[in-house]
Amino acid sequence: MMRNLLLFTLFICQFTPLGQKPPLDLVRWVNPLIGTHKMGHTYPGATAPFGMVQLSPDTDTIPYEVNGKYNKDVYKYCAGYQYDDPTIVGFSHTHFSGTGHSDLGDFLIMPTTGKLQLNPGTEANPEKGYRSKFSHDHEKAEPAYYRVQLEDHNILAELTATNRVGMHQYTFPKSEESHIILDLMHGIYNYEDKNVWTFIRIENDTLITGYRQTNGWARTRTVYFAMAFSKPFTSYGNKDYSKAQVYRGFWRKFDQSKNFPEMAGKQLRTYFDFKTEEGEKIKIKFALSPVSTQGAVANMRAEVPHWDFERVKQESQAQWNQELGRVKAALPTKDDYINFYTALYHTFLGPTTYMDVTGQYRGLDQNNHQANGFTNYTTFSLWDTYRALHPWFNLVQPKRNADMVSSMLAHYDQSVHHMLPVWSHHANENWCMIGYHSVSVIADAIMNGTYTGNANRALDACVATARQGYYDGLQYYMQLGYVPEDKNGSSVSKTLEYAYDDWCIAQVAKKLNRQDVYQEFSRRAQNWKNVYDKSIGYMRPKLSDGTFKKEFDVLSTHNQGFIEGNAWNYSLYVPHDPAAMIQAMGGNKRFVPHLDSLFTMHLPDEFFADTEDITREGIIGNYVHGNEPAHHAAYLYNWTDQPWKTQERVRMILKKQYQPTPDGLGGNDDCGQMSAWYLFSSLGFYPVAPASGEYALGSPTVKEATLQLENGKTFTIEAKNQSDRNVYVQKVELNGKALNRPFLAYADIAKGGKLTFYMGGKPRK
Amino acid sequence: MMRNLLLFTLFICQFTPLGQKPPLDLVRWVNPLIGTHKMGHTYPGATAPFGMVQLSPDTDTIPYEVNGKYNKDVYKYCAGYQYDDPTIVGFSHTHFSGTGHSDLGDFLIMPTTGKLQLNPGTEANPEKGYRSKFSHDHEKAEPAYYRVQLEDHNILAELTATNRVGMHQYTFPKSEESHIILDLMHGIYNYEDKNVWTFIRIENDTLITGYRQTNGWARTRTVYFAMAFSKPFTSYGNKDYSKAQVYRGFWRKFDQSKNFPEMAGKQLRTYFDFKTEEGEKIKIKFALSPVSTQGAVANMRAEVPHWDFERVKQESQAQWNQELGRVKAALPTKDDYINFYTALYHTFLGPTTYMDVTGQYRGLDQNNHQANGFTNYTTFSLWDTYRALHPWFNLVQPKRNADMVSSMLAHYDQSVHHMLPVWSHHANENWCMIGYHSVSVIADAIMNGTYTGNANRALDACVATARQGYYDGLQYYMQLGYVPEDKNGSSVSKTLEYAYDDWCIAQVAKKLNRQDVYQEFSRRAQNWKNVYDKSIGYMRPKLSDGTFKKEFDVLSTHNQGFIEGNAWNYSLYVPHDPAAMIQAMGGNKRFVPHLDSLFTMHLPDEFFADTEDITREGIIGNYVHGNEPAHHAAYLYNWTDQPWKTQERVRMILKKQYQPTPDGLGGNDDCGQMSAWYLFSSLGFYPVAPASGEYALGSPTVKEATLQLENGKTFTIEAKNQSDRNVYVQKVELNGKALNRPFLAYADIAKGGKLTFYMGGKPRK
Repeated sequence: MMRNLLLFTLFICQFTPLGQKPPLDLVRWVNPLIGTHKMGHTYPGATAPFGMVQLSPDTDTIPYEVNGKYNKDVYKYCAGYQYDDPTIVGFSHTHFSGTGHSDLGDFLIMPTTGKLQLNPGTEANPEKGYRSKFSHDHEKAEPAYYRVQLEDHNILAELTATNRVGMHQYTFPKSEESHIILDLMHGIYNYEDKNVWTFIRIENDTLITGYRQTNGWARTRTVYFAMAFSKPFTSYGNKDYSKAQVYRGFWRKFDQSKNFPEMAGKQLRTYFDFKTEEGEKIKIKFALSPVSTQGAVANMRAEVPHWDFERVKQESQAQWNQELGRVKAALPTKDDYINFYTALYHTFLGPTTYMDVTGQYRGLDQNNHQANGFTNYTTFSLWDTYRALHPWFNLVQPKRNADMVSSMLAHYDQSVHHMLPVWSHHANENWCMIGYHSVSVIADAIMNGTYTGNANRALDACVATARQGYYDGLQYYMQLGYVPEDKNGSSVSKTLEYAYDDWCIAQVAKKLNRQDVYQEFSRRAQNWKNVYDKSIGYMRPKLSDGTFKKEFDVLSTHNQGFIEGNAWNYSLYVPHDPAAMIQAMGGNKRFVPHLDSLFTMHLPDEFFADTEDITREGIIGNYVHGNEPAHHAAYLYNWTDQPWKTQERVRMILKKQYQPTPDGLGGNDDCGQMSAWYLFSSLGFYPVAPASGEYALGSPTVKEATLQLENGKTFTIEAKNQSDRNVYVQKVELNGKALNRPFLAYADIAKGGKLTFYMGGKPRK
Repeated sequence: MMRNLLLFTLFICQFTPLGQKPPLDLVRWVNPLIGTHKMGHTYPGATAPFGMVQLSPDTDTIPYEVNGKYNKDVYKYCAGYQYDDPTIVGFSHTHFSGTGHSDLGDFLIMPTTGKLQLNPGTEANPEKGYRSKFSHDHEKAEPAYYRVQLEDHNILAELTATNRVGMHQYTFPKSEESHIILDLMHGIYNYEDKNVWTFIRIENDTLITGYRQTNGWARTRTVYFAMAFSKPFTSYGNKDYSKAQVYRGFWRKFDQSKNFPEMAGKQLRTYFDFKTEEGEKIKIKFALSPVSTQGAVANMRAEVPHWDFERVKQESQAQWNQELGRVKAALPTKDDYINFYTALYHTFLGPTTYMDVTGQYRGLDQNNHQANGFTNYTTFSLWDTYRALHPWFNLVQPKRNADMVSSMLAHYDQSVHHMLPVWSHHANENWCMIGYHSVSVIADAIMNGTYTGNANRALDACVATARQGYYDGLQYYMQLGYVPEDKNGSSVSKTLEYAYDDWCIAQVAKKLNRQDVYQEFSRRAQNWKNVYDKSIGYMRPKLSDGTFKKEFDVLSTHNQGFIEGNAWNYSLYVPHDPAAMIQAMGGNKRFVPHLDSLFTMHLPDEFFADTEDITREGIIGNYVHGNEPAHHAAYLYNWTDQPWKTQERVRMILKKQYQPTPDGLGGNDDCGQMSAWYLFSSLGFYPVAPASGEYALGSPTVKEATLQLENGKTFTIEAKNQSDRNVYVQKVELNGKALNRPFLAYADIAKGGKLTFYMGGKPRK
């Protein structure tokens, strides 16, 4: 009690931004609408920290393909919502945050009034379907709370959520014909055969259960639900939009379209009828489970055993305040607060909880498993998140990060490929992107002592993964020391990333004294050298005959041996040994101007068109912040004699790439990776090589920030004389002692203490 | 020990048929090929008593529909096998026995040699696919054992099974190119979209797991498997015959067709390559589970922890001998032995076990459940089996029958309709046929004291079922006292069967002193009177305005208010009160000639064409033994002054309708109902009204038979002076005391004792 009071007092004293009261209520700085316009691919709806339910409005239902052809427009709707859309189709319960490919959008709910319409209608003619026009003037998004006025139906929609339960509150007008639609045909990245099977049971006049099984980005995915109404419906019905089932058989005894409690098929929509008084609220609790409808019912009863919408909202927002309170930052401007805490919010959206309150979850083998001693998480966008998001967790959410490692090891145990996850979600491996970056996350957690499970078992999983020959050119890589472009595309990116991952494995092997593994993977970690073409100074695709590919353009990303980054960007990718890389590239003298030009050159439009997932604003010169491969690039000056250029560049990127507006993210947030970059960089350091135990220093934007560590310690970053102009670090002190190198150890933070930056307007060369 | 020896000695003394050694080896009398030709719809393959696995050859793969139209030929293949077919497609693991509609045929295995062919080929050109010609000369079917020479591949195929594991043994020739195909596209009553999803994992070089999910007669069904080889394969492959999946996505990294261990899609075939020496045996253990692949692996390990094919065969056959030994019969001829023990075999094929060794099973709600204190069974063809099969179980398998009641009550608990099963299989209600005859099975078990669970709970389930208004005309029935034909077809059959079922409920209510229920359902039991048209002496469809339907033909079954039986047959259906029915129909004088004519008249071809499921041989006059509604009819003479006609008719039916040949069954065996009729009638009695506690006596064909009851008692039927000519009962003694009525009480059998028939060549009028 005394201690809390003391902390509170300290807190009061430390925070006086803008001359306001202290921002104990951190939730208010979060704007979930940031990133919902253009390429951010975030969603504005209600979710709890790392919650299984992401209850959010969907503004359109663009099909993934039309007449068997990929429909480019679907890409905008990775998270279901685009800020400039005029209508809302309804509210569905699962959304990725910031991904560059998509899935989910399960179980759309829409309240309507008037004549029942079971089709969603179109943006151009919303009145011909159940969707509704809406205005941002009557929309509000907060952590765990979303509100919007549905103009066409005169209904106020409010959403909140606990971990596994979405709660809806609809305020109706007086109407004899009020409806709530549950659309199981709806989905994100949907197409005709995406629903493999759906199943609905009307258990009684307030409880519905069922599931949706899809074949999408996740090849074999099932999500179960339980849905409860605060008020009994007066009648209900189903419509089956599937092709006629061949075996209707004796089901024809029944009129299944009206008040019949069991439906199954591929394309189902269900509705529930109510009579409502003016201002009457109908609430819905909608629970998910990866395991069963039984599980969903149990989740609902455990997490929301009442009908108090306000209470759920308050408790979930309190939870958000608690999580956001892990970093207490003092920032120069209101916009900085919004950017900072929205970034923090974005990093805490996922990976998401993937188990019932009982610990049961669906495994990769499609069997149900019990999570013993850990919380099982899913949605590992590892190609993105190994860089900064997991290192960020390792710092501010080490317990969750260790559980994520346990979740990856469970995945490994259930993998018929004997591989750790590459890009996994909802009991599926989708194999998206390249590398085997689970090993980076695991190594980071082991090296920094935050994963306390069986490290040898974890290392075995890493080794087995890295030796799976049929995976993405690995057999060649193991034989030749590189992936040959004529055998396996994006070969340079793969070689470089494998080499980094192998270095991670070697570090763990060394720590565990597994000499054979250490030797093997230390050797493999050198493989980046095999794709470096000294004659041109770039990484370059090599063929299986050992010669470099002749046709080659360092600016193009199209069929040049790279993915989501051209040779210019990817040639800088040796995070585990920048010094050797700089050496190979000619030392400081040649390297620094080369790196300078990355940020200053102009990337011609023809090459920009090749990059994916980003707006033109996602690029600075030829540096593509909207994609990940060069996320560490600005920090590479620290390995040269001109670290002040890191400080300058980082500040420029922070300023240009993050805005407190719906279109404020220049590229996909990628499950929090972009936001984690922002947070690290704002605090003044960045994990160039996770698992190294070290951060490269940059230039903080915070005036002060305190990390509340789970070990009970705090670590404070202070930036003296900090301003928009004073971006250059004059000196740095750790606990009052000067730091001589522009690097900071994880261990130094974990011990607690203070890092003080002295800022100035001129570089300290 | 002494006691067993004593029993054995008694047994030796009692059985000396044909002057042979006693038939302790009862298995040898069973011919699983009986009923495999034409309409019997039995399967010849290997299965354990009430086993989950029915591993049997399929001789064709006729699709259920062609160009969107029902393909009549598919009907022949309800059990996958037709005796006159020249080829075998392969061996699949699930089959119904004797049904009149179908499903299943999961996981077809076929061993081949030579060039790999993944399509099944056609009967006309078997060499163009993996199927093979075969000959009955090189085929052998026994309980739990099936053997056939696959001519095209020069492979001897042998099959055996435990409850949950099918075991294959293939004797190969020397070949560099031997294959074993696992076809997940195959199925019974298959059609293009029947596979909702299938999933395969090659766990290692001897273990495969996966599942098949179908939308067929069971609307939402999934069956899981684990498959182990006795020898590692050298390579393997998959082919996906599905329409291209929209989201192949990053799975394109892999060549999934060859040595890639994970496949999912709608139309998959997998093969495994071997090199074999001359005479080399490759064995397969193939375990099923209704719950998970984990469950299937556990089932395999628990039931067959070795590779000894002979041992499995011997143990399963020993189990069959034990089950068949529940009735030790002495019969006049070898054919009688074959008929009798094959009938007994057929009654013990199902309902089938539907839970893992752990007690886990998939419930009707698609959740997994634990069977606490009972074995969960599935495949309840209740419209057929409530008549004689379940009463038969109640006598010779009361423990299993009580578990079947528990399984039905679990179904009820999981039913969103709050209904007991109508026709259920594999965690599905398929609603086939009419009535709610679970209540008859439950009442029979409660009234005879063999169900010892909570009878009040069971009664509540019966009552809830019987009051479910939206079920098949029940709302009208409850309002009007009959189902009106203009509102709901087959209305007379429904009214009559509901009335009988209601009487069953009333009996239980009376026993439990539930007066209100007793009153309500006793009233409802009288409803048969509402569809009896005194003016013509037949049951007749009535309209909702209370008038009888004008257009009406007593011989036709087409749109006359009946199903699987015309007015002639169905008008005799008041099993719970034959006396009142006879009274209504004009008493003995009018009724007896009327009943006589049923058997002697000629049913014109035009009306025969209306009947379903039976061959012309399935009819005697206008009596349709091949369908069920009149199964009790021959016993009705017992309620008149001429019971000798029952004796005569029963003997005629036994002789005409059951032959020890592949085409020896005149109609579908209907999951054992036809066979149970045979067994009861052979023993000399039949349960006209299950739950009445009484059997009507007929004319035994056994010379002697002893029922080994589970309570440790035995009950012996002796027929003195029995022969093909001496079909008339002269007198009957129970434990030496004359029986004055042609009826026998269940309780008298349960007490143990002896029933002696004295037979003669002339009726005792």
